[in-house]
Amino acid sequence: MQIDLKQCCMALATAEDVLILCHKSPDGDTVGSAYGLCYALQSLGKRAAVACSDPLPGKFSYFYPAGPTPAFAPQFVVAVDVADPLLLGEKLSGYADRVDLCIDHHVSNTGYATHLLLDSKAAATAEIIYRIITSMGVTLGREMATALYTGIATDTGCFRYSNTTAQTHQVAARLIETGIDHAQINSCLFETKSLARMELERLTMASLEYHFDRRCAVITLTQEMLHTSGALEEDIDGISALPRQIEGVEAAVTIRERVSGEYKLSLRTARGVNATAICRSLGGGGHPAAAGCTLQGTLPEVKATILAAVGRELEGVSR
Amino acid sequence: MQIDLKQCCMALATAEDVLILCHKSPDGDTVGSAYGLCYALQSLGKRAAVACSDPLPGKFSYFYPAGPTPAFAPQFVVAVDVADPLLLGEKLSGYADRVDLCIDHHVSNTGYATHLLLDSKAAATAEIIYRIITSMGVTLGREMATALYTGIATDTGCFRYSNTTAQTHQVAARLIETGIDHAQINSCLFETKSLARMELERLTMASLEYHFDRRCAVITLTQEMLHTSGALEEDIDGISALPRQIEGVEAAVTIRERVSGEYKLSLRTARGVNATAICRSLGGGGHPAAAGCTLQGTLPEVKATILAAVGRELEGVSR
Repeated sequence: MQIDLKQCCMALATAEDVLILCHKSPDGDTVGSAYGLCYALQSLGKRAAVACSDPLPGKFSYFYPAGPTPAFAPQFVVAVDVADPLLLGEKLSGYADRVDLCIDHHVSNTGYATHLLLDSKAAATAEIIYRIITSMGVTLGREMATALYTGIATDTGCFRYSNTTAQTHQVAARLIETGIDHAQINSCLFETKSLARMELERLTMASLEYHFDRRCAVITLTQEMLHTSGALEEDIDGISALPRQIEGVEAAVTIRERVSGEYKLSLRTARGVNATAICRSLGGGGHPAAAGCTLQGTLPEVKATILAAVGRELEGVSR
Repeated sequence: MQIDLKQCCMALATAEDVLILCHKSPDGDTVGSAYGLCYALQSLGKRAAVACSDPLPGKFSYFYPAGPTPAFAPQFVVAVDVADPLLLGEKLSGYADRVDLCIDHHVSNTGYATHLLLDSKAAATAEIIYRIITSMGVTLGREMATALYTGIATDTGCFRYSNTTAQTHQVAARLIETGIDHAQINSCLFETKSLARMELERLTMASLEYHFDRRCAVITLTQEMLHTSGALEEDIDGISALPRQIEGVEAAVTIRERVSGEYKLSLRTARGVNATAICRSLGGGGHPAAAGCTLQGTLPEVKATILAAVGRELEGVSR
């Protein structure tokens, strides 16, 4: 059942021994929202803890406590930024049908929780948590603000993406007023690359090719590159954005080898070039500006197939 | 003479035929501030135009008008974001001693103008222009907001840097409320790389070496790389930030060949590693976290010299 902000605050005000669940493969918004809320509840004298199926990424360690999570029998279970119970992951799957309250900004939320506070216009779940905390009369502390700022900065690409609203900036202003070191947070979030990521970028950029008078850029990510660089799944994140950044490139293709003989292709396109049309012709799908498909064959075969499809689409598009 | 916001607004309210000057090598803040103010004055029925010694960068063309600047004999001259009359550049040097009003956020402003509105706490001059416009009672239009947002986003690295304040976010909120396409602006400002820049990054990253158990990273930029990539001076900007981003790297060195046999070295260091101490020992200088020096010799000689100095400093620093 969907509830409003006031009802949510009332539910939390009467809750005791609160366990707050993050989604698996945790990002800054789910962890930041969870600890923002956890610290707020603790400041009200409540017992509260955060749980996640996966280990929390070390890069967020500036705002979550070291050491083991306090263990207690939860009387009230809250899920934050978790759109679907499947996203709780294996270790927390036992909570899937006993989430008392879910706080989320994903329009795709399945409504699995007993109560749901959903605001799909919020740039981040952390933005909603901010409203809850302040509506509950909690004094916003620097610890809470650091966690919430992390959530907002993560989901907006540091206020770059179109989901950023005037409201997002207003919340950021209030968080910064607490005296958080936002420059240091942003440096951790946006200006630090693992050695493996750096190696992977180097190898990927060495594979960069241009086609169709430089209107199309192609990068390749092989299993060997992943192995050589030591990259983990989290290091691959965002790699396909690299060729899209090049001035004048209208179709940016990332070819990623999944297993021998199978490749996943991601396509990002400029306005006017239909990524879905290209990928649908190859059995895939997606959005007009970002689509994908899976192809079987050798790397040269797969590359020739996607280039032919890109070429057909570009032919119909004037520069 | 320094004036306050109210005096500045009164001066502009009575001014006619206003020429607004940018600094040379124009960035988003000087151009955004100039056009933000220009559009505001025009909305009040005044004649106003913007001038700059250098051509305005094409990447800002989404907010400045195409075609020639309207020509008129200026009765009132305003300089925005220009800390020193020398920064007006050659073409505008004739105005150096006849600037009626300077609006700036650089603490280093020389006070060359008849009147100066200075706020060194403002993240960008565009933030001050926003306050002027709203104080003058101008209805903030989308054109003005687009120009001012560009100025703020440029000078704060899209709200990432430590100069970003709660006030900065509050202004951004108001600018976004006008309905500007901030995601598109940010894409132009932060996610577009020239072909030459991409090539230069590829070549530079191929030169990446690690030393001292990966505590030190070195990249090299030769004249040949610049030639091969076709990079201009503006394409080199920020390249030395690349090795500094690598996790665990405490000393990041960029070796740039200036002329045959002469190299400029830039050093960026993590907290605790004194960049100035290293560079001073080689005849250079700088700040604790960013310093530089110039060395003569072959590339292997120069590299050996800087590595020896870095090694001595790292020896004294526990990890």
